[in-house]
Amino acid sequence: MDGTTEVLTALLIMFAAAKALGYVMERLNQPAVVGEILAGVIIGPSVLGLVQASEFIDILAELAVIVLLFRVGLEVNLKDMMEVGLLALGVAVVGVVLPFIAGAGLVAWGINGDLPVALFMGAAMVATSVGITARVLSDMGQLQRRESRTILGAAVIDDVLGLLVLAMVASIAVSGEVSWSDLGITIGATVAFVAAVLLLGRPLMASIARRLPHPETGPATLFVALLVMLGLSALAPLIGLAAIVGAFFAGLIVELGDRQPALEKQVDSISEFLVPFFFVSVGTKVELTAFTSRETLGLTVLVLVLAMITKVAAGWLVAFRSGWLSSTLIGVGMMPRGEVGIIVALMGLSLGIIDQNLYSVVVAMSIITTIVAPPILKVVLSRLMAKEAQHSGGPTGVEQVKPAQ
Amino acid sequence: MDGTTEVLTALLIMFAAAKALGYVMERLNQPAVVGEILAGVIIGPSVLGLVQASEFIDILAELAVIVLLFRVGLEVNLKDMMEVGLLALGVAVVGVVLPFIAGAGLVAWGINGDLPVALFMGAAMVATSVGITARVLSDMGQLQRRESRTILGAAVIDDVLGLLVLAMVASIAVSGEVSWSDLGITIGATVAFVAAVLLLGRPLMASIARRLPHPETGPATLFVALLVMLGLSALAPLIGLAAIVGAFFAGLIVELGDRQPALEKQVDSISEFLVPFFFVSVGTKVELTAFTSRETLGLTVLVLVLAMITKVAAGWLVAFRSGWLSSTLIGVGMMPRGEVGIIVALMGLSLGIIDQNLYSVVVAMSIITTIVAPPILKVVLSRLMAKEAQHSGGPTGVEQVKPAQ
Repeated sequence: MDGTTEVLTALLIMFAAAKALGYVMERLNQPAVVGEILAGVIIGPSVLGLVQASEFIDILAELAVIVLLFRVGLEVNLKDMMEVGLLALGVAVVGVVLPFIAGAGLVAWGINGDLPVALFMGAAMVATSVGITARVLSDMGQLQRRESRTILGAAVIDDVLGLLVLAMVASIAVSGEVSWSDLGITIGATVAFVAAVLLLGRPLMASIARRLPHPETGPATLFVALLVMLGLSALAPLIGLAAIVGAFFAGLIVELGDRQPALEKQVDSISEFLVPFFFVSVGTKVELTAFTSRETLGLTVLVLVLAMITKVAAGWLVAFRSGWLSSTLIGVGMMPRGEVGIIVALMGLSLGIIDQNLYSVVVAMSIITTIVAPPILKVVLSRLMAKEAQHSGGPTGVEQVKPAQ
Repeated sequence: MDGTTEVLTALLIMFAAAKALGYVMERLNQPAVVGEILAGVIIGPSVLGLVQASEFIDILAELAVIVLLFRVGLEVNLKDMMEVGLLALGVAVVGVVLPFIAGAGLVAWGINGDLPVALFMGAAMVATSVGITARVLSDMGQLQRRESRTILGAAVIDDVLGLLVLAMVASIAVSGEVSWSDLGITIGATVAFVAAVLLLGRPLMASIARRLPHPETGPATLFVALLVMLGLSALAPLIGLAAIVGAFFAGLIVELGDRQPALEKQVDSISEFLVPFFFVSVGTKVELTAFTSRETLGLTVLVLVLAMITKVAAGWLVAFRSGWLSSTLIGVGMMPRGEVGIIVALMGLSLGIIDQNLYSVVVAMSIITTIVAPPILKVVLSRLMAKEAQHSGGPTGVEQVKPAQ
């Protein structure tokens, strides 16, 4: 019983601290996730030392991030993404290539790091956090804008690309050298997995969905959804992909039409309970002492600037026809790295490829891009809406600045 | 990553097997929980050996049963219980005393067991599973009957009494002898904990509830509920009570009026995901080889008969004025031991007080009372309703036999 009591006490402290600082951040118009990570830094060994690392918490955190990426996958509708089309795809691809080159190049030529380290740094720069971007746009009641749908579409493709980049990078890094046959196998396995999941999994899910008792989104629907989540999360690592990639694709293929919103609410309750443990556990792994050296601090600033510029540049390069403000909006919307960059860094750390310093740099970059993006997004969006209101002559555009609720 | 992948695979197998056999049991008009335990027996070391014991699964199971008893506590309304009044209290007390004496007496004088073993056996015979009883009555659309409310009220008081009995028994058993001062301290601590939780916790919760944003049962409400759950679960063991006792009281004091049903749905989603892991893990701990000895088999039959007779006798003794069928209905409604008896046995096993044989006997008793009670309940209830329909001359009573939905 004592081990359980210790774990319960740790869970209590983590949960309370995460929600308290998350609430404070929301009050300051910042994403709650920032507060949850900061809570981990504060209660972790770096500051108060209230919570120690434990195997149970590590696995629970992994289970939590599986639920999180499953939830993100659930919200994404493949058809809506297809409609935004080529623009989103272009923003996504350029928004992956530029940060990857910047991150990998900085490590390879800037600080003379090894190739695996460079690749991990590139991969950690790549992804966009769908959750944070979507939440900011939704809070401002601007989810139906063309720019918003482009950002969401691109962010989703970014996530997939980022996770694929991660899978390839991890495979290269673990084998210790660039093995082109391994890379081919990884790409082949990835493509086969994605194709099998989308081509076989979606029709299978649709067929199961038709057989489910309809009147209510009861336990049966949630059970099928969670079974697919656990199934693909356990399957993905067997072919070299991360468990979270499996969870994300599980979310993608679970599409239940009019029962989807109710299912999303059910999964929300689970993620509301579990996900804070992931972000707090992320925070507990940050070593603040890493930032006392001037070198690390300088590197953080450099990485941060590159992370921000490359995403905005992707918006400008691909969406220049939409105009200066619209393309800036799209670029800024792709800026927050949120949990995905940290997941990559954590994987690099646990594989022993990147060190504590670089891990802390990536976490700082992820936290700061996540904190900085929402306010910039707000300013650019407000200007754009004011300009639109001027052109149409009415005050309706200004009213739209107000939050939806 | 390998450890996590192993755990994910184990979770997948446990979840799929639990839900599949739970579904089969529901199809056979039996409680799903029976299927979940059987799933554990089948995938556990006793039969297929697909899932091995692990620290992560043990703690996850403990967290699951905390969520389960929190959920039961949420559903219980103290005021409704007070209204059913003395009858429920009488049924509860006699329904605790008779099985305890029967179980403890059987071990102490029947098989010459030690006092701690006798006390644990008595405690394991005591409790009624609120969830199973409530679900059967609800499935038959008969929750509003006087007998149903008496059963529910008594089952809830039974749960509290059973958990208190368990706390005392565990304290006696761990200290190795009957220490009357320790018993006094345990009773004092229990009374103080219950009084503090009910007298301070409820008004505090009511005050917090008034401050919560009202329009919707959003994350804030769920957060407060889960925080109280984790808080009291972590606190209870510090004063010698089981974590699940804390979780149950947490559920009791969280009363949010019109927001309660929405909160219960949110907690349902969490328990839908986690709770199967508890029952499967319970099943994996059953050693079927224990039943190969004729002695154990005979003991199981004896314990089972005593467990059933003592609960029905409690109904007859206390509710005799309600008539033969009504008092039998109440007694049979108290019969299913469900998870609570198994929790007691598991605690006794993990404390090294009861052995594998006796543990298996208690699990068999719990499973069989849980399987046997619903059909008997149905027969008695149908007869009672047919009799009522005869007296009133109308067919309305018969119609009520149909399920609510």
